[in-house]
Amino acid sequence: MLTTKTFRSVQPLRKMLQPAVGCAEQRRGKVLTVENMNPHVKQMEYAVRGPIVIRAGEIEEELKRGVKKPFTEVIRANIGDCHATGQKPLTFIRQVVALCTDPDKLMKDPTYPSDAKERAQRILDGCGGKSLGAYSDSSGVRVIREDIAKYIAERDGHPSDPNDIFLSTGASDSIKTIMKMLMTAKDGKERAGIMIPIPQYPLYTATIAEYNAYPIGYFLDESNTWALNIPELKRAIKEARSECKPRGIVIINPGNPTGQVLSRDNIEAVIRFAKEEGLFLMADEVYQHNIYAEGSAFHSFKKVLMEMGPEYRGMELASFMSSSKGYMGECGFRGGYCEVINLDPAVKAIQIKSISAKLCSSVSGQAVMDVVCNPPKSGEPSYELFMKEKNMVLGQLKTKATMVTKTFNSIEGISCNVVQGSMYAFPNIKLPKKAIKAAEAAGMKPDVFYCTQLLEETGICVVPGSGFGQREGTYHFRTTILPPVEKLQVFMDKFKVFHKNFVQKYQ
Amino acid sequence: MLTTKTFRSVQPLRKMLQPAVGCAEQRRGKVLTVENMNPHVKQMEYAVRGPIVIRAGEIEEELKRGVKKPFTEVIRANIGDCHATGQKPLTFIRQVVALCTDPDKLMKDPTYPSDAKERAQRILDGCGGKSLGAYSDSSGVRVIREDIAKYIAERDGHPSDPNDIFLSTGASDSIKTIMKMLMTAKDGKERAGIMIPIPQYPLYTATIAEYNAYPIGYFLDESNTWALNIPELKRAIKEARSECKPRGIVIINPGNPTGQVLSRDNIEAVIRFAKEEGLFLMADEVYQHNIYAEGSAFHSFKKVLMEMGPEYRGMELASFMSSSKGYMGECGFRGGYCEVINLDPAVKAIQIKSISAKLCSSVSGQAVMDVVCNPPKSGEPSYELFMKEKNMVLGQLKTKATMVTKTFNSIEGISCNVVQGSMYAFPNIKLPKKAIKAAEAAGMKPDVFYCTQLLEETGICVVPGSGFGQREGTYHFRTTILPPVEKLQVFMDKFKVFHKNFVQKYQ
Repeated sequence: MLTTKTFRSVQPLRKMLQPAVGCAEQRRGKVLTVENMNPHVKQMEYAVRGPIVIRAGEIEEELKRGVKKPFTEVIRANIGDCHATGQKPLTFIRQVVALCTDPDKLMKDPTYPSDAKERAQRILDGCGGKSLGAYSDSSGVRVIREDIAKYIAERDGHPSDPNDIFLSTGASDSIKTIMKMLMTAKDGKERAGIMIPIPQYPLYTATIAEYNAYPIGYFLDESNTWALNIPELKRAIKEARSECKPRGIVIINPGNPTGQVLSRDNIEAVIRFAKEEGLFLMADEVYQHNIYAEGSAFHSFKKVLMEMGPEYRGMELASFMSSSKGYMGECGFRGGYCEVINLDPAVKAIQIKSISAKLCSSVSGQAVMDVVCNPPKSGEPSYELFMKEKNMVLGQLKTKATMVTKTFNSIEGISCNVVQGSMYAFPNIKLPKKAIKAAEAAGMKPDVFYCTQLLEETGICVVPGSGFGQREGTYHFRTTILPPVEKLQVFMDKFKVFHKNFVQKYQ
Repeated sequence: MLTTKTFRSVQPLRKMLQPAVGCAEQRRGKVLTVENMNPHVKQMEYAVRGPIVIRAGEIEEELKRGVKKPFTEVIRANIGDCHATGQKPLTFIRQVVALCTDPDKLMKDPTYPSDAKERAQRILDGCGGKSLGAYSDSSGVRVIREDIAKYIAERDGHPSDPNDIFLSTGASDSIKTIMKMLMTAKDGKERAGIMIPIPQYPLYTATIAEYNAYPIGYFLDESNTWALNIPELKRAIKEARSECKPRGIVIINPGNPTGQVLSRDNIEAVIRFAKEEGLFLMADEVYQHNIYAEGSAFHSFKKVLMEMGPEYRGMELASFMSSSKGYMGECGFRGGYCEVINLDPAVKAIQIKSISAKLCSSVSGQAVMDVVCNPPKSGEPSYELFMKEKNMVLGQLKTKATMVTKTFNSIEGISCNVVQGSMYAFPNIKLPKKAIKAAEAAGMKPDVFYCTQLLEETGICVVPGSGFGQREGTYHFRTTILPPVEKLQVFMDKFKVFHKNFVQKYQ
C-alpha cells in the first residue's frame, strides 16, 4: 500500500487543483506543477490502489500505533494479490527459479528434484552467458516462447508460433504495447477509440487516458451474468463514431471485476461484431486457469476465431496472459506474455523495435511464466506435488466463489451474479435514498461513501464500483475471493451486520 | 538478439512504407497498418538493437548451420550486457535472491552464510505474505527504499528520504515515468522540449519520439573529453525556443556512449544553467560504480546541487540508477530506482498514482537493487568474497578501458577519448572520401557501411555512431569494453587489420 505520507500529499492536491495555486507554484519556483504537467498523466485513475486503499494503509499504521478500532486487522479484499493474502507459492515454480538464480550451488544440491533441474537448465541454456542476469531478446527468451507456444497449441488444438509471442512485465505491459500501436495521435473524430467493458479493469481507462485515446464504454449485461450484449456493442460504437475513430475492442474473459466466464456463442458473436466493424481484438485472458462454476469452461478467443472459418482466421488478435493470477499468483515476479496473431509483418517489425528500447522483461519473471506453461508432466518426480498444490489452490477458490455468491445473495438489498471465474465478485447494492443524500453531503459518490464506512467500521477494504464503472444509479463494489476461507467467513459475517446497520441507519 | 524471421520481416518494411502499399494493406484487410498505426511508435529507433545487431544474430545462426566465414564467432560489443559476455554474477547477490525465492528450503540450508539469510529475511519481512510473489508498493518495497536512501545518504553526505525513491524496471522505466510528466501534450511552440546530449543513449530519443516531444540536442565537446560545454547548451536551447517549450535536461554521467566522467566544476555549471533556464534536471547516473581513470571521481548531481547553496537546494532533480551496470551487471533482473527530489507534493501524488497502474516492478529485481545498495559490511561473513569479486570485475574493466583507449589511439585515422568510466569507448574514425561515396552508393550512412563491413569480415559487432548522434561529417562507433581480456585482445588485433585494409581499399 502507499505510505501515510503519500496519502497526506493527496490532501493538498485538491487545493492545488485550483488555478490560483498555479501562481503560488510558480512563486515556489517549481518547474513541474499540476497546471503545466502532462494532462494525460494527470487524468489517469487506478481505483484498485485508490484513496480507500491508501486509507486502509493508514488504518493499519494506526492499529500498529495502538489506536483503538472496532476491529484488530484490515482485511484486504481490494487487489488480486494472492500471496499477500496468505496463498503459498507452488514448490516447483520456486525450485526452478531458485535453481536458475544460484545454479553453481543448487544444481549440485541432491535434494532438488531432477525435473526442476532440467527445466532450470533448459531456461539457463537459453539465456546469454547461461545467466538470468543477461538481457533476453526484447520479446523474451526463445525457449520460453517455444514452451508458451506449445502450451497455447495444446490448449487450443491450433498451432502457435513462438515468433507471435512476446514476454512482458506482467500482462499490463504488453496490453500497453498493443494499445499504443492503435493510437492515431490525432484529435477530434480522428482520435483513436478503444471499446472497453463497463465495468472494466482500470488499467484500460488509465492507458486510454495516458495516450489520449477515446474510451468507448460498452455495458456488460448484469441481468445476463455480465455477458457481452451485441445490440449494446452496436449502440456504443454507433454513438462513438462522431467522437473518435474506433480501432479496437477489449474483452476481459474471465471477467474482472465481474467474475463471469463467457460462453462460446457469446465469444463468436463478439468476433463477428469485431469483423464487421473492423476492430483489433484484445482478449485479456489472464484468468484462464480460474474457472469454478459448473458448466463454465474457458474458450480462448484464438481457438474460437480459428474455428469460425477462413474469413475469420486472418483477424488480428492479441491475447494477454500473466503469471500473477491463475493458481500460481506470482504477482511480484511480473511475468506475462502476449500472443498476437495476424499482425502485418511491417507492423510487427515496428512493434519489436518499439519494445527493444525497454530491452526486456524480468528474466526471472519469464522463468516463472515458463513453468506455468510447462509444468511437470505425469510420471515426472514433481508431478504429484505440483498437481496437489495446484488443485488445492483452485479448490479453495471454488469454495470461496460459491461462499461469496451465496452470502451476498442471502442479504436483502444485495444481488450478486455467480462468480463463475477469475477472483472477484461485483455485488449490486441497493442504497437507501437517505444514504445517497448523506454521501452527497459528504462530497462522496454513494458507493465510495458506503465502502469508506465499511472500511472504517469493519476493517474490510473493497473497491467501489465507480472505480470500474457501472450503470448510472446502480452501486457495486469489487471484492476479491482471496482471503483464506476462515478469514473470508469473518468478512462475510461482519459484512452482513454492517450492511444491515447501514441500511437501518439511512432508512 | 532478434530472430532471423524477425529480420526478414524488416525487409518488406521498406516496401510497406511506400504509400501504394496502404491500399494493398487495406485489401489484405488488416486493421493495423504501417500507414494508420501510431506515428510516434513508428518513429522510435533503438540502435543498440538495430539492423546490424539483427544481422549479427543471423550470422550466428549461419555459423551454427556451418556457413564458412573468415571468423568462427561473433564478438558482441554492441550492448552493455555483462553476463552475456562472460562476467560471473556476484555470489552474495545470487545467494540473497535464491534465499528470497525458496526460503522454506534454503533458510534451513547451513551452507548459506548468515548475512545473506539476514538480508533475505529483511526483504521478505517487507513483502506481502513474506513472499517475492506479492505485489509491492507501486514505488517499491519499503525496506528496500530505506536501504537505498541510506546508500545515497552515505554516498553524498546529505540526507535522502525513502519517500523520494521509487523502484522501477531497470532505469529505463523510471526515466520514462519522469519524462512523461514533463510532456505538454501540445504541438508547435508549446510542445515539450527535452535537452539531450549528442551523442546520447537512444532510449532518450525513443522516449521523446514516443511522447511527441521535441529533442533539443546539445553536442558534447569531443575535444574536451566529451564534457558539457555551456555556450553550446545556450546555443541549443536558444535555437530550440522557436520550436518548443524547453522543460528538462538529461545528463548522462558517466557517459554513454562516450565514457567520460564529468568534473565537479562541469556539473556545477550545468546546474547553474538549468536553474537559469528553469529546467528539470534528469541525471542518468547508472554507471556511478564504473570509474576507471586516475583523477576521475563520481560526483552525484544531488551532492553537487546540495553543496551549491540554498538557492539551488530546492531544484527538481531526478537521478536514475540500475542494477544492470556497475560491477554487478544483473541486467536480466531489471532492477532500478529513481530518487526524485523537490517534486511538488501534488505532482508527486499524481506520479505515484501514475505508476500504480503498473502495480510494481519485479520484486526479485528490487531485491537485487537492495543488495547493491546494502552490500556485506566489513566483518560480516560474506564481506571478503564480495569485495574480492567486486574488485576483480572493476579491476578488469579498468584494464580493458586502458587497453581499448591505447589501441584505438595507436591506429592511424582513429582517435578516442580516454574511457574514464561507464563501459564504452566511442572512437572517432576518419573515413576516406571513396568509402563515403561507396557507402552512398550502397544506400548506407558511412558509419553504418563501416560497421557492417567490420561485422561481415571479422564478426565484431559494434553500433554505428549515427545510432547515438554525432557532429555532421564525423564518424564514430560505440563499442563496449565487456568482452573478457583475451577476447578483447583478439577484437583489437582483428580490428587493426580490418581498419588498415578498409582504408587501403578506399584510399
